[in-house]
Amino acid sequence: MSTVTSHMSISLDGYVAGPNQSLQAPLGEGGQRLHEWVVNTAGFRSMHGGSGGESGPDSDVAEAVARDVGAYIMGRKMFGNGARHPAGGAWDESWRGWWGEDPPFHTPVYVLTHQPREPVPMAGGTTFHFVTDGVESALEQARAAAGGQRVMVGGGAATVRQYLAAGLLDEVYLHLVPVLLGAGERLLDGLAGDGAGDPGFEPVQVIASPRVTHIRYRVVPGPGRA
Amino acid sequence: MSTVTSHMSISLDGYVAGPNQSLQAPLGEGGQRLHEWVVNTAGFRSMHGGSGGESGPDSDVAEAVARDVGAYIMGRKMFGNGARHPAGGAWDESWRGWWGEDPPFHTPVYVLTHQPREPVPMAGGTTFHFVTDGVESALEQARAAAGGQRVMVGGGAATVRQYLAAGLLDEVYLHLVPVLLGAGERLLDGLAGDGAGDPGFEPVQVIASPRVTHIRYRVVPGPGRA
Repeated sequence: MSTVTSHMSISLDGYVAGPNQSLQAPLGEGGQRLHEWVVNTAGFRSMHGGSGGESGPDSDVAEAVARDVGAYIMGRKMFGNGARHPAGGAWDESWRGWWGEDPPFHTPVYVLTHQPREPVPMAGGTTFHFVTDGVESALEQARAAAGGQRVMVGGGAATVRQYLAAGLLDEVYLHLVPVLLGAGERLLDGLAGDGAGDPGFEPVQVIASPRVTHIRYRVVPGPGRA
Repeated sequence: MSTVTSHMSISLDGYVAGPNQSLQAPLGEGGQRLHEWVVNTAGFRSMHGGSGGESGPDSDVAEAVARDVGAYIMGRKMFGNGARHPAGGAWDESWRGWWGEDPPFHTPVYVLTHQPREPVPMAGGTTFHFVTDGVESALEQARAAAGGQRVMVGGGAATVRQYLAAGLLDEVYLHLVPVLLGAGERLLDGLAGDGAGDPGFEPVQVIASPRVTHIRYRVVPGPGRA
């Protein structure tokens, strides 16, 4: 069965986005600092149709997280609300997300939303499907589409948190970036409860670079105790 | 010149102590989960006069952080307020801290406090000195006493945060424990400001174990940008 996974760049003080997220600054103030490690890697550039870039452990990680993904799941904001498409409103059918005409997924993508919409096929193998009946349904559809490859819960943070809280993630790969954002959106808040159902984490792989510490955790059901 | 360092066990959601800290539970609820990795190591046990315990990377780290320390600095709560000695009150001279008659430091220890007190010599080479004129003065005295060995800012979190904010720490060694505490005291809150004076961190050593990821950061002055 498909492994259900997610990966997030996270600041040393726990934020996956900076404060004051907006359509103009979807990562919030300073949020781009969380992604500087990846954008200059050879792995990231080649996946996005570019060339050049740095090789090394960060590049290897950038490639590894994208490898063998058979389907993606994402929240509606990550699909892109767009300036003409405020969150919560009905779909403007001319709005095809902010990933361009050839999005970097090349697989089916399941978008969590409250507004039904027909699938939107794009160039390069990406088709956006809109799921209105919740995270479990999206996962079921993604699993069926992935054909044994991995299902990637792409984000944003609230979506990853929902999957963690529901016990549906098998692993989460954190890229721990040594910056302090001081404010913004935290990935792991609100998940520790009475201790009975918290997710627990087991570090199964650690890759160090001078810029980032990459830690792959297996998510273990139960009381969140190491 | 002495390296000024600190090491803290920290939860995956950023806490160094659980909620509801009290004299009975100085680590807060669940806070002992942050230290389970160390108490069973051979390194920790032998330093505290015991024997046995597990060898391996966690044990090596436990030994490394205590090695070549020439002086400690700690907050008054870490020295131990004691049931008979509420914070902020005058010293009860019969109260000698909660580390026992042979504390595990074996060096001079500089305790930050607002109440002056004569030094308290203990067995095994530990002497508690009480510093009322601030973190820089405590550091100056600790450096002089350390004779070129390291100065360890032992805690608690507020004390470490003060030294980080003042730009006085050369390195901080985090032991990232894969548990969620959900509430409590965070180590790195309130340090990111306008970006001009934030501490920046550079990972210089990463040691992985199945229980904990140990990351040693060099603290770099400046805008906290990786």
